[in-house]
Amino acid sequence: MAFGKTPRSGLMRALIVGLGNVGREVLKQTIECEDMEPAGIVTRNPDRVMAEGVDCPVFHADDVEAWTRVGARVAILCGGSKDDLPTQGPFFARRICTVCSFDTHAHLGPYKDEVSGVQEAGYLAEMDAAAKHGRYMSIVSTGWDPGSFSLMRTYFTACMLGAKAYAFYGVTDRGGLSMGHSDAIRTIDGVLDARSFTHAIPQAIERVRKGENPDFSAGEMHWRENFVVLHQGADPEVVKEQIVNMPAYFAGYKTTVEFITSDKMETLRSDMRHNGVVIAVNNTGIMEFKNEWTSNPAGTAGIMLAYARAAGRGAINGKTGAFTVLDIPFADLLPSSVSRLSLI
Amino acid sequence: MAFGKTPRSGLMRALIVGLGNVGREVLKQTIECEDMEPAGIVTRNPDRVMAEGVDCPVFHADDVEAWTRVGARVAILCGGSKDDLPTQGPFFARRICTVCSFDTHAHLGPYKDEVSGVQEAGYLAEMDAAAKHGRYMSIVSTGWDPGSFSLMRTYFTACMLGAKAYAFYGVTDRGGLSMGHSDAIRTIDGVLDARSFTHAIPQAIERVRKGENPDFSAGEMHWRENFVVLHQGADPEVVKEQIVNMPAYFAGYKTTVEFITSDKMETLRSDMRHNGVVIAVNNTGIMEFKNEWTSNPAGTAGIMLAYARAAGRGAINGKTGAFTVLDIPFADLLPSSVSRLSLI
Repeated sequence: MAFGKTPRSGLMRALIVGLGNVGREVLKQTIECEDMEPAGIVTRNPDRVMAEGVDCPVFHADDVEAWTRVGARVAILCGGSKDDLPTQGPFFARRICTVCSFDTHAHLGPYKDEVSGVQEAGYLAEMDAAAKHGRYMSIVSTGWDPGSFSLMRTYFTACMLGAKAYAFYGVTDRGGLSMGHSDAIRTIDGVLDARSFTHAIPQAIERVRKGENPDFSAGEMHWRENFVVLHQGADPEVVKEQIVNMPAYFAGYKTTVEFITSDKMETLRSDMRHNGVVIAVNNTGIMEFKNEWTSNPAGTAGIMLAYARAAGRGAINGKTGAFTVLDIPFADLLPSSVSRLSLI
Repeated sequence: MAFGKTPRSGLMRALIVGLGNVGREVLKQTIECEDMEPAGIVTRNPDRVMAEGVDCPVFHADDVEAWTRVGARVAILCGGSKDDLPTQGPFFARRICTVCSFDTHAHLGPYKDEVSGVQEAGYLAEMDAAAKHGRYMSIVSTGWDPGSFSLMRTYFTACMLGAKAYAFYGVTDRGGLSMGHSDAIRTIDGVLDARSFTHAIPQAIERVRKGENPDFSAGEMHWRENFVVLHQGADPEVVKEQIVNMPAYFAGYKTTVEFITSDKMETLRSDMRHNGVVIAVNNTGIMEFKNEWTSNPAGTAGIMLAYARAAGRGAINGKTGAFTVLDIPFADLLPSSVSRLSLI
């Protein structure tokens, strides 16, 4: 356990903000890794977290005075991109170095708010202003996409003249769980629970690997497999119609809907697998990256931890403001004990 | 052609040093790419290069005054690691920003010279001193290994707690050409010509993919397929014995030797394919990178060009000294016209 570790000056102390699926994995890996330790958990529900018996100080997010006293160098923000990070991100970035896995691509840079019509600066600019105000370093959108996949798209595009980088998700037989699409189905009347799996279309991957550099519609790259539990009395045909025609989420995709029992859903609930590939091809060859997570939150947590190390270090070296993964050299991600030269 | 491009202030001018297989590809791609142009070719044989009719100024390496006058921001050093770069590298690094693909892993950091027994500072330190002296930026050991593979080993190790990153070469049916091993065979008495192909052992890759994180001897990961043309009268059995028992190169590996005619060798001579994978696995999942080059020099050239861009830019921003790929953020590799946000 973290508090069984002999305190050493080299250990970087991290706050874990939010104890959902990703937060729990971050806590576990922060304890396991050689050069970091959890300084505390920050949550909106301290009572619930403490009732779970975590071996770590627990703070309410608003109790800034308390959590700033624990000597943490970095806060790992494990909240969601829709409701948590837009406010949580800048709040913490003003007070401590941060990493997050903000994944609303369209809101990272400047955008026009769909409801109000107001032109917004975007998450990156807001985090940058907050971090500069506090003279801290924030690294945004770490994780695997955005994150690993952003890095690969950039590296492949830069190194392979004329190549376009393509990303496919759910490339294994079982595909990968999409939380966003699962949530979208749950908003439909008559739906008790739902899980949506993304599958890449193998023929599309083959066209990319052959070097065609094709223009795809979204529906030509992926299809969607959905499992739904209905409320008693709900009409399956009506629900199915609403799913397959839902704009942005399912319209334009090959979409299957299977109605299942609550018991069957129980077996899907713990299935957090996800995977994907990035591929680029030109006339000299092919570069391809694949990750395959048995647990999506665990994979994401591992990457966030590496960037937490970089954010904590960057601030020591006078780097302040918000950065993306494209701005961070890989040397900064390693524990100090690992020889850089041995990896070259 | 290069000189058909309308000169623009945004175009970075690059010197190409050495016109071997990699140099020719660098020249071609520098002409093709949108934001760079060749400023000239620097060679020890200007007459031979000019006789080929390249559409570009040609300079003798020693004629420093001439090639420093062409307004180049970066020199792309395309010489070999054994004979060219140890002297060529520091010579150019004192006078201009450079990139190279130095690939003698053991001589990158401090090492003891095998012959003289003298402790050497290593290529990185020598390049660093030279580049700092001239206030230029040098990026060393770009290419695919070291280079892409160094990046992947580092990223995978940093992001996947407990995982070891493994590299395999020649993972396709036909394997990949090893120039170093081909050269080694050519030093044997009675050998007229030789080509050596590296093959990964599929069972070893499977063990890594399964997450065993095994300790391998070199011979458990790869085997070597060799094609040899003999001088008339040479004894095949004697030559074969010398090959399979050659320390460091073939001893300890499964090694095949096939004696072929000069005509058959002609068909192998233009075969510059190479490929490899980097794989890391822990209990949360797997990260895997593959590149597959139909032309090894062309793939290498594309990567060097991206780092040439970064070296030229770095010096503008006051970064001086020698750096490895682990120190360079990917954002610096892209042409200015490419939107970073679109790749995140």
